[in-house]
Amino acid sequence: MSVTAAKGFEASGIAAGIRYSRNDVALVRSTVPAVGSAMFSRNKVQAACLQVNRAHLAAADPQAVVVNSGVANSATGKQGHDNAVATAAHTASLLGLAPEQVLVLSTGVIGAQLPMDRLLPGIDQAVAALSAGGGHDAAEAIMTTDTKPKETVVSGGGFTVGGMAKGAGMIHPDLATMLAVFTTDYPLAAGEVHALLQPAVDATFNAISIDGDCSTNDMVILIANGASGVERTPESDAALAAALRAACEDLSRQIVADGEGVTVLAEITVDGAVDATQAKAIARRIATSPLVKTALFGHDANWGRVLMAAGSAPYNGGYADIDADRATLRYNDVVVLDHGTPTEVEPDVSGPSCTIALDLGLGEGSASYLTSDLSYEYVRINGDYRS
Amino acid sequence: MSVTAAKGFEASGIAAGIRYSRNDVALVRSTVPAVGSAMFSRNKVQAACLQVNRAHLAAADPQAVVVNSGVANSATGKQGHDNAVATAAHTASLLGLAPEQVLVLSTGVIGAQLPMDRLLPGIDQAVAALSAGGGHDAAEAIMTTDTKPKETVVSGGGFTVGGMAKGAGMIHPDLATMLAVFTTDYPLAAGEVHALLQPAVDATFNAISIDGDCSTNDMVILIANGASGVERTPESDAALAAALRAACEDLSRQIVADGEGVTVLAEITVDGAVDATQAKAIARRIATSPLVKTALFGHDANWGRVLMAAGSAPYNGGYADIDADRATLRYNDVVVLDHGTPTEVEPDVSGPSCTIALDLGLGEGSASYLTSDLSYEYVRINGDYRS
Repeated sequence: MSVTAAKGFEASGIAAGIRYSRNDVALVRSTVPAVGSAMFSRNKVQAACLQVNRAHLAAADPQAVVVNSGVANSATGKQGHDNAVATAAHTASLLGLAPEQVLVLSTGVIGAQLPMDRLLPGIDQAVAALSAGGGHDAAEAIMTTDTKPKETVVSGGGFTVGGMAKGAGMIHPDLATMLAVFTTDYPLAAGEVHALLQPAVDATFNAISIDGDCSTNDMVILIANGASGVERTPESDAALAAALRAACEDLSRQIVADGEGVTVLAEITVDGAVDATQAKAIARRIATSPLVKTALFGHDANWGRVLMAAGSAPYNGGYADIDADRATLRYNDVVVLDHGTPTEVEPDVSGPSCTIALDLGLGEGSASYLTSDLSYEYVRINGDYRS
Repeated sequence: MSVTAAKGFEASGIAAGIRYSRNDVALVRSTVPAVGSAMFSRNKVQAACLQVNRAHLAAADPQAVVVNSGVANSATGKQGHDNAVATAAHTASLLGLAPEQVLVLSTGVIGAQLPMDRLLPGIDQAVAALSAGGGHDAAEAIMTTDTKPKETVVSGGGFTVGGMAKGAGMIHPDLATMLAVFTTDYPLAAGEVHALLQPAVDATFNAISIDGDCSTNDMVILIANGASGVERTPESDAALAAALRAACEDLSRQIVADGEGVTVLAEITVDGAVDATQAKAIARRIATSPLVKTALFGHDANWGRVLMAAGSAPYNGGYADIDADRATLRYNDVVVLDHGTPTEVEPDVSGPSCTIALDLGLGEGSASYLTSDLSYEYVRINGDYRS
């Protein structure tokens, strides 16, 4: 069900032949007026669709999202921008919306232009196929080389949050790593959505890493249409925030677990940092270190690499200031370094997942990061030629 | 010859059985009073020898360097510190020097203690073996799993700069990535060495990347003893600076070429940045991106990944502000992106090396970075279990 689990949403996924011989255009819309917001990749190279969506969100609340896979429409100059505008306008005219009420998402190869002669007829098909049961088709259509669709539904308290995402599976090296669309029938007012979306995304999608690279197309969208008819209370608002966080967390984990060539998942926790910002910088550095990630692949609790990474985490224009003599490090709750002294105990990290917990002994800051190993398969997938 | 090419230097390399069944202790000394300085890894986790060397350099000019491979003596607490102090003291007593005149370098596994019962007798042997022809033995003794020793000699104008280095070859995952020792018989005064060393190192050793990870043991040392007897002039000072830069460059290239699993070398150039700092941040981000490096391995001129990396280069607490519409990108001098518009020309990157030149069209800042591909072999080497 995913994005059509909440009331008043329809979706579809159809095959337009953009690049794959399978579903590659997805459409999601609210059947009633809705509010919404989005968060974008901070990469300074922004795909055309991100630029267009910023303008649309500034002008109106979104009521529909059209997605294509296969071509990212990134680094495509003026023609790429015009194509993104035309995609939204065509979709809007078919749905009886203003162009600004439509958001456009593209994922696939960077630097290639959208085949508009196939995309626009595909959108006609997608509009015709819209249904309250179309969430799964939509989730399939946004995949690039994800091995499975990523869907989530969190219900309770009379309302529902549904979502779909695509993650990092890129035999055709696209960089358009991650897209997620969430829908809810909870009643929100215009302008409220962003403040709700941001903390949920920061704690989940912004705390996962496959390879530390940052896409030009990453985007997370939330649309709320109020169709559940629930009465808002402080408690229900809190329940919505919790449901959205749970839905983001669910899709985040699905993305990492289905990451390119992933064989091991690792939850990195940093405690005792000076503050949360320092903790996150250090957790991120550990989670993206090639040496830490190859050790995970080798099922080797090679804790020296974790300390090396922690000591070279970019922070405030230098490296985060830590003191190895105060550091305590655990793998799967087994202490390998105790306030700077190696314990010479060897933890068991033979399983498909592990925890790495670093306590810096400096303050109260904490952060966590979900990461994966770096495997032969990652190199194979990303070393493959594009065509 | 390497570190013994300059007059008045002796060296040796002997087998102490620390971890390998080959030469693993190196000694370099000036036979006459000398001046010197060192540059250290900025990693906040500093191996014991780095901490001890800082104190020694603050107290005296160095006249000898003792190196062991196999054990990095990093993250080893108070015992590790005491062992580094004892190593310097033992060497100094045999050479008739003050302990502060001896620098200590260790490279190998992190978190393991030095076997002092084997290291100290090894130093006795190394002192006995000192000779003006011992440079090559020393260069071999500092290797971990480098496939070949790295030596350089630059002569001219009546003086010589010699050097040896070890790079990144780490079947035993050590993190103690890079060490380099330079010697020269050029006459320098106390306090002059650092100002000479820093720009040479910044332009060479600080502009190479195997995997973006930053060792706890990296160190570059220069010792100058004046034994050439050349007369100093502004021209000869400039010649020394050029010779040192050339020697650093030579060893840098040897280190990348012999990097773990390297099959492709790439010279990354960034021009037209706002300033040199921005250029370097962007060049470094491109040079360390796993997606860029796996594309190099696949001999794929996948330029979208270069743009992606450029757009997410950490700079001033955010990402370096670039404009894709002004960017021009060349592979091996073939334009693939022309002021933001893809040319759809496919450059030939089938060879073992290539150039990637990004012109941002923003200002006058330039930087370059030497990098390598990310191969199956890198994963194999670093995924291997430690023992």
